[in-house]
Amino acid sequence: MRCPRSGRSRLLLPWLLVLLFVAGNAGCRTRPIAVEPVLVIHGGAGVPSKSELTPEGDRAYREGLTEALVAGHAVLRQGGSSLDAVTAAVRVLEDNPLFNAGRGAALNRDGVAELDSAVMDGATLKAGAVAGVRTVRNPVDAARKVMERTPHVLLAGSGAEAFAVSAGLPVVSNAYFITEARRRQLQEILDAPSRRAALPASVGFGTVGAVALDRSGHLAAATSTGGLAGKLPGRIGDSPLIGSGTWADDATCAVSSTGQGEFFIRYAVAHDIAARMAHGGRSVDAAAREVVLGTLVKAGGEGAVIVLDRRGRFSMPYNSEGLFRGWIGSDGIPHTAIHER
Amino acid sequence: MRCPRSGRSRLLLPWLLVLLFVAGNAGCRTRPIAVEPVLVIHGGAGVPSKSELTPEGDRAYREGLTEALVAGHAVLRQGGSSLDAVTAAVRVLEDNPLFNAGRGAALNRDGVAELDSAVMDGATLKAGAVAGVRTVRNPVDAARKVMERTPHVLLAGSGAEAFAVSAGLPVVSNAYFITEARRRQLQEILDAPSRRAALPASVGFGTVGAVALDRSGHLAAATSTGGLAGKLPGRIGDSPLIGSGTWADDATCAVSSTGQGEFFIRYAVAHDIAARMAHGGRSVDAAAREVVLGTLVKAGGEGAVIVLDRRGRFSMPYNSEGLFRGWIGSDGIPHTAIHER
Repeated sequence: MRCPRSGRSRLLLPWLLVLLFVAGNAGCRTRPIAVEPVLVIHGGAGVPSKSELTPEGDRAYREGLTEALVAGHAVLRQGGSSLDAVTAAVRVLEDNPLFNAGRGAALNRDGVAELDSAVMDGATLKAGAVAGVRTVRNPVDAARKVMERTPHVLLAGSGAEAFAVSAGLPVVSNAYFITEARRRQLQEILDAPSRRAALPASVGFGTVGAVALDRSGHLAAATSTGGLAGKLPGRIGDSPLIGSGTWADDATCAVSSTGQGEFFIRYAVAHDIAARMAHGGRSVDAAAREVVLGTLVKAGGEGAVIVLDRRGRFSMPYNSEGLFRGWIGSDGIPHTAIHER
Repeated sequence: MRCPRSGRSRLLLPWLLVLLFVAGNAGCRTRPIAVEPVLVIHGGAGVPSKSELTPEGDRAYREGLTEALVAGHAVLRQGGSSLDAVTAAVRVLEDNPLFNAGRGAALNRDGVAELDSAVMDGATLKAGAVAGVRTVRNPVDAARKVMERTPHVLLAGSGAEAFAVSAGLPVVSNAYFITEARRRQLQEILDAPSRRAALPASVGFGTVGAVALDRSGHLAAATSTGGLAGKLPGRIGDSPLIGSGTWADDATCAVSSTGQGEFFIRYAVAHDIAARMAHGGRSVDAAAREVVLGTLVKAGGEGAVIVLDRRGRFSMPYNSEGLFRGWIGSDGIPHTAIHER
């Protein structure tokens, strides 16, 4: 015998499923009219151990991160684009000599600062990058100009510098980038190359980066670095490589990486996180953790990523000692963290 | 009442499922003891239309492809590695002035040949690449040396050249690479930049590449190019970028791309094909076609890929006029194709 109640459920069920399907797809396809903007930044995975970091050092790093958060969030709060926000945040970190990007960059084997940077726009999948520049004061601005003013994505070396000059960007001497701390660091590496393995934190994978979500629901990412201390001249790491150290696609997420760049290239880390979301249905957190705590750990690659999706959910997994990082969301308060999980 | 036959099926079914699962996974994990080697190559998607290609031109391109197939297959037949096979095949194409790599490379805006190349080993996910080299006779050999002798993946410009010299590789003057046909091509572009869009075939995305499967079941990929004719000095295209123009992972596939490089970077084409296989369960052919005939066409990016999986299945989709390509498998006979589907 048939129960009338169960009969009604049977009639309702297909409609409920249709409704759920429509609602789910609507959520996926329509752009929210106004989203709460979010900015997440990092100042590198090259973090000293807790005992090595003095209270003054801790404070200085947090102040630097906060300054970048405030600069980037001001752009977002005023309705600016995520692309402008990540550029603004990374510019502040490039200008801060504490971080391995712009002024304060790690030096190559010959004592020269060679800088890499990339930006990517999640709305259009347009991207720009420079590698191995020695005289452009803010490499992130040069990356933006490559995206906006050339048919190319990546310019390197003297060609990139000539372009930056033609685009009207400020140029400095290489000495502007070099700090006493970086000179000492390089000397230590050159004096005892075998110590390099024992010095992961100070071998300068202190890349900086930012990912942002703006009020229009668009994602963007930017990364900037001096690269690996003691690197061969001409070495390009993962930071300026789209899909390795930098990625942004509104359909999935925005990513900025830091760590032993060669591993991030060989495992296409930034794109693999997005691909796990796109093709494997993973959440932003699951995808980021699988790659950083799974793939990279198995391969022996140290580092971290910051990843943000277009609903404002973010993840900052690291397999290193710590990660200089910060975030600012709907509460408008800049948060920073270094060692704490 | 219960039918004994159906009862037996019920008992058998779970065991059958377990068996299927184990068999499926065994197939995924164990390496075949001896596989039939396969080599697939391309000489670029910058193919003239059928009416423009003379019978002599057709023959010359096919001879060039055949020579590369024979050189690479000789390595595989003798039990050599897929890495050695792709390097050998690409070296032959670099030496052939018909193709846009090594001698015969497209020229940058200043009339200089700036060469890019990458190799990747699917067994170890190790990779090496050079970008913007002007004097290294065979860029693919320099890419191999970066992989084997440095802790880095990518070296660019004069740093890459200094490394190649220190690794004992033959150096030539830039004039060695320059042919009369490429000089004429550049002049046409400089004379009428607006014609560039009307000249897709001759604007030289004639990159070359190879993917191979060796007797041990290992995959490898190599790509080499002079890049886009008339490019800005210092421009790096997709060819030397791991995950953009070149990829190899025994778990999925080996890929080499050719086309409008900037699109291949912005869509992480090579890695996206592998990711659709890894995370989306696609076959090599479905993954390659989705990206080249779906993603790239929608984005407006012209080009092609060759993709090979570790069972020897391969795919060579192109959305351009044609693709200079060739393959050689268990029959030991070199096959070539240009316009034919």
